[in-house]
Amino acid sequence: MSEAAAAAGTGRVRLQFRPDGGDVRGPAGTTVFDAASWNGIAIDSTCGGHGTCKKCKVRVLNGAVPVSSVDPRAFTIDELRHGWRLACRAEATEDLEIDVPPLQTRPKAALVGVGRHVILRPSVQKRYLELTEPTLEDQVSDVERVVAAVDDLELRVHPGAVRMLGRTLRAANYQVTAVICDDLLIDVEPGDTTADRHAIAFDLGTTTVVANLLDLATGQPLAVRSMLNRQQPFGADVISRVSATMMDPDALEALQARAAETLNQLAAEVCEEGGIDRERVYEMVVCGNVTMTQIALGIDPEPLAMAPFIIAARRLPPVTAADFGVHLHPRAPAFTFPALGAYVGGDIVAGMLATGLTRDRRVRLFIDVGTNSEIALGSQDRVVATAAPAGPAFEAAQIKCGMRAAEGAIEGVRIEGDEISLEVIGDTDPVGMCGSGLVDAVAQLVGAGLLDHSGRFVPDDAAAEAHPVLARRLVKVGEERVFVLAWRGDEPENAVYLSQRDVRELQFAKASIATGWSILMSQLGIGPEDVSQVLLAGSFGSYLSPASAVRIGLVPRLPLPRIVSAGNVAGEGAKMAALSLRERSAADAILDEVEYVELSGRADFNDMFIDQLAFPG
Amino acid sequence: MSEAAAAAGTGRVRLQFRPDGGDVRGPAGTTVFDAASWNGIAIDSTCGGHGTCKKCKVRVLNGAVPVSSVDPRAFTIDELRHGWRLACRAEATEDLEIDVPPLQTRPKAALVGVGRHVILRPSVQKRYLELTEPTLEDQVSDVERVVAAVDDLELRVHPGAVRMLGRTLRAANYQVTAVICDDLLIDVEPGDTTADRHAIAFDLGTTTVVANLLDLATGQPLAVRSMLNRQQPFGADVISRVSATMMDPDALEALQARAAETLNQLAAEVCEEGGIDRERVYEMVVCGNVTMTQIALGIDPEPLAMAPFIIAARRLPPVTAADFGVHLHPRAPAFTFPALGAYVGGDIVAGMLATGLTRDRRVRLFIDVGTNSEIALGSQDRVVATAAPAGPAFEAAQIKCGMRAAEGAIEGVRIEGDEISLEVIGDTDPVGMCGSGLVDAVAQLVGAGLLDHSGRFVPDDAAAEAHPVLARRLVKVGEERVFVLAWRGDEPENAVYLSQRDVRELQFAKASIATGWSILMSQLGIGPEDVSQVLLAGSFGSYLSPASAVRIGLVPRLPLPRIVSAGNVAGEGAKMAALSLRERSAADAILDEVEYVELSGRADFNDMFIDQLAFPG
Repeated sequence: MSEAAAAAGTGRVRLQFRPDGGDVRGPAGTTVFDAASWNGIAIDSTCGGHGTCKKCKVRVLNGAVPVSSVDPRAFTIDELRHGWRLACRAEATEDLEIDVPPLQTRPKAALVGVGRHVILRPSVQKRYLELTEPTLEDQVSDVERVVAAVDDLELRVHPGAVRMLGRTLRAANYQVTAVICDDLLIDVEPGDTTADRHAIAFDLGTTTVVANLLDLATGQPLAVRSMLNRQQPFGADVISRVSATMMDPDALEALQARAAETLNQLAAEVCEEGGIDRERVYEMVVCGNVTMTQIALGIDPEPLAMAPFIIAARRLPPVTAADFGVHLHPRAPAFTFPALGAYVGGDIVAGMLATGLTRDRRVRLFIDVGTNSEIALGSQDRVVATAAPAGPAFEAAQIKCGMRAAEGAIEGVRIEGDEISLEVIGDTDPVGMCGSGLVDAVAQLVGAGLLDHSGRFVPDDAAAEAHPVLARRLVKVGEERVFVLAWRGDEPENAVYLSQRDVRELQFAKASIATGWSILMSQLGIGPEDVSQVLLAGSFGSYLSPASAVRIGLVPRLPLPRIVSAGNVAGEGAKMAALSLRERSAADAILDEVEYVELSGRADFNDMFIDQLAFPG
Repeated sequence: MSEAAAAAGTGRVRLQFRPDGGDVRGPAGTTVFDAASWNGIAIDSTCGGHGTCKKCKVRVLNGAVPVSSVDPRAFTIDELRHGWRLACRAEATEDLEIDVPPLQTRPKAALVGVGRHVILRPSVQKRYLELTEPTLEDQVSDVERVVAAVDDLELRVHPGAVRMLGRTLRAANYQVTAVICDDLLIDVEPGDTTADRHAIAFDLGTTTVVANLLDLATGQPLAVRSMLNRQQPFGADVISRVSATMMDPDALEALQARAAETLNQLAAEVCEEGGIDRERVYEMVVCGNVTMTQIALGIDPEPLAMAPFIIAARRLPPVTAADFGVHLHPRAPAFTFPALGAYVGGDIVAGMLATGLTRDRRVRLFIDVGTNSEIALGSQDRVVATAAPAGPAFEAAQIKCGMRAAEGAIEGVRIEGDEISLEVIGDTDPVGMCGSGLVDAVAQLVGAGLLDHSGRFVPDDAAAEAHPVLARRLVKVGEERVFVLAWRGDEPENAVYLSQRDVRELQFAKASIATGWSILMSQLGIGPEDVSQVLLAGSFGSYLSPASAVRIGLVPRLPLPRIVSAGNVAGEGAKMAALSLRERSAADAILDEVEYVELSGRADFNDMFIDQLAFPG
């Protein structure tokens, strides 16, 4: 953003693109190129917006865009007078109407994210070069010879790329392929290897880590693998992992090594499945929560865990795959998603990118349900975000018969009449229940009148009167009342059941989330009726039943079709960043567009939280 | 240099500074700040020319300087109209008269190089910061908190500096010292460590390596040490070391390791002598010939050794002490002097910087005498440079009684009447002769008429007639005529002598150098009489007798006071680069200012070479 626009506050401008008619709103100071690109409108470019290729020519039909320092090298004075500008240098500080000339070549695009059409412009580029051999009359250095041949970019050179450059050039008869990440030359390979260009997008979760191997030439995924984060022995959630580093001075290093092992194993697996040499993977993208990201880079996470919850850096300095301990091309950079705050991390920014939360006209509510639940609300006009400490209920960690979503876990519960039907993962006998089963069970029992709105099991006599058959499942285990979901023998102790305390855990969790979105709504001055869509993100969100989520008050009471499971949007966002430099800067812009609201500082939090503990009437 | 100035060719402009009256010529496109700084005229600045501190305010009294993009943030429109500009952004594309306001603080300066007054502005800076503690209302990240406190710089942040930042800030109660190299934050130290700021300047020679530990706060050297390059077992000169890498695939790695060992041992020694923790050395500067520099960085040197003699890069990408395998501060950068060509390397550029060759009104001839001799000629108007393959005579390697300049080496010879007096290193009995002794011996024998101008010992009868006493020293060893400098017993075989072949070796070497400067003179269209000064550089140059150098025709025939030994100017240049970012950019500018002349491509070389073989009449 220009200083002028920044000084003018967080104003937004409207850009209308001709002849396609694209109509885009964005923050003042956005370049015309970015605004077009974020919205799938293709403008020619090979340099990625560095102002060096001079191909992104557009004409301003309405509105004023000052002549940039690069424009006079691309246009005649007459053209400048008629409104021609380089789109990558044209900052929109007021509403504009822009004419985009037809493309010389059709841009490649890929469909990723939540129905988002991403124009392929990966950071990783390859250029096949046929160089002239040096002579006594032409003693240009090897590096300068290569750099000069890539004349639409102003290349920086990685020192490691220089080591064997002389040998490679001579052995390959000066027919080589330059490997470029953004504007950095990381290697020169013999012959023409332009078809061989890959990246891995990692979703680095606390529980699960997912790797996506991408063919950058086509935008297509070649292989996807996931596995449990090897940091599990140090604790299931981020707080216990940070605590480990505080108790034991060696734990940070050990945790970092476990992260590297996890990422490396996934890298090996996707490369094997995709039939790709790991050294031909030239970049990795990482989205993860702040704790996972900091630990994976060996950055002390302690300040994240204690008030006032300070992150090392919202935008980390540029790092490499080697900094993550991951063996890909030895000089492969790593793009790390920026974070809004200690508990709204890069995974959520990636999710916002994939869902286009900050670029959509509709007001949408984004919830990534988990131990720490991240919530964002808004539209292209304004987005606010916060984190709600929901506790471990959704991971089913503190739930009596809780278990991870694995074989034997009840993931769905339905009560019809006297019948209880269970959905069990793997279609086997149930051995426990996972988070979505917990939410379903509670929602169904509230619906059946066996749980009252305050969250207490109704008295035995009232239960027997309302549901003589089901009431038989309302028994005691020790001193505690429980509801048996599945008998295993006659003893309630052996059954899979829901305890009174489990219900309390869930109430705590859902109240925390509901308080979060309630505060965000008051921040925007809107009510639930103004929300067009609720996006449930993350692996847990994908399994959650929208009806149950409404019933327990986890999400606002909206028509069910408006509550959608968005899937692994973080992973989709990571793919988008691998495929497009423009999406990467869109991710970066999210930090300026979204306001982070800290809940722990608010005086009204406790009142609202208590209001939200009950189940909606 | 601006593109406009570059397009305008290699024009030069004149800058007159008021009120001091400094009168400076430089290449068109030089900034006013650089031009002033290179000439010891102090202008305020804390950011080092990045346009961020806005302190380098000057007023243009005569001549036009366009308003830069940063100027409007530093000046009112009225001030701009009256010629006020930021000196670091003001490119001189025509002759200018500049008013420099008096400084707020007196700049520190140090005397280095050949009488050059260097204004201290090291790349390494420290800033003591007292930061406000974060709160729930002020959740600015740790990195952003530090970066914001250094508001005159636009800091980049080293990822490694982030790792323990959180812990350091909290343990030090937010009272910390930022360690900055150029615009890169490499560390944050607890408390106020601003007084503790060091760098090591290395002169990485093929034979000898010198390290200078510098206190960057004062510009003073704290310790100097030198030692033989541990690569010696791979050969005495650069060609044999390159050959080693071509014969044995492991040799490059081995040679690189030896360079690292040498540099590390010197670093340890100077730090111990200076009483400085190695981790408090934040930068190293390296000047060396191209082969030594490339090998030390693990860059394949093979293309240097074969026509057309191609260097990996004239300007290497930014590297670190770790890239050189040197243990200083773990994130210490390394500044490597740029090179003009395969055989006019960073050591010579450093020498040109230290002698101010490209900034002086006088026409001067710079010769670094050695196996590969580098020669540069010119003044502030134009400088040309070349390399002459002098062979090993000056290192006394192929000389029959030759030895390195160590104890027992004859380093000076004088014939007066029938007397021969010898200067011997260590004042002991002579055991051989080093390069300067060889030059002296030949020069004295030519003067005495015992060697004719073609380089042959005169016939015995002619010798006996001219010098009956000295002629007794003209004897035979085997079939070859020799002149005995020092008897050791009766047998000539055991004496320290000069052989006919030794004379031939020296003739070859000096003819090569003389051909070099002759070609450079013809390139500039000048004769010896136009040369104001001859600078003999390098360790060998320091010991050479000017009279003998003239007598054998190694240097042009000039009055002896005009032939000066410049000492280790490369090492001085390295110190200057450690002490001043401006000197560093002056070194960089030398690459654009000096024209490299390749001798091996020239048709006239052989003719001129044969002309130069004889000793001047």
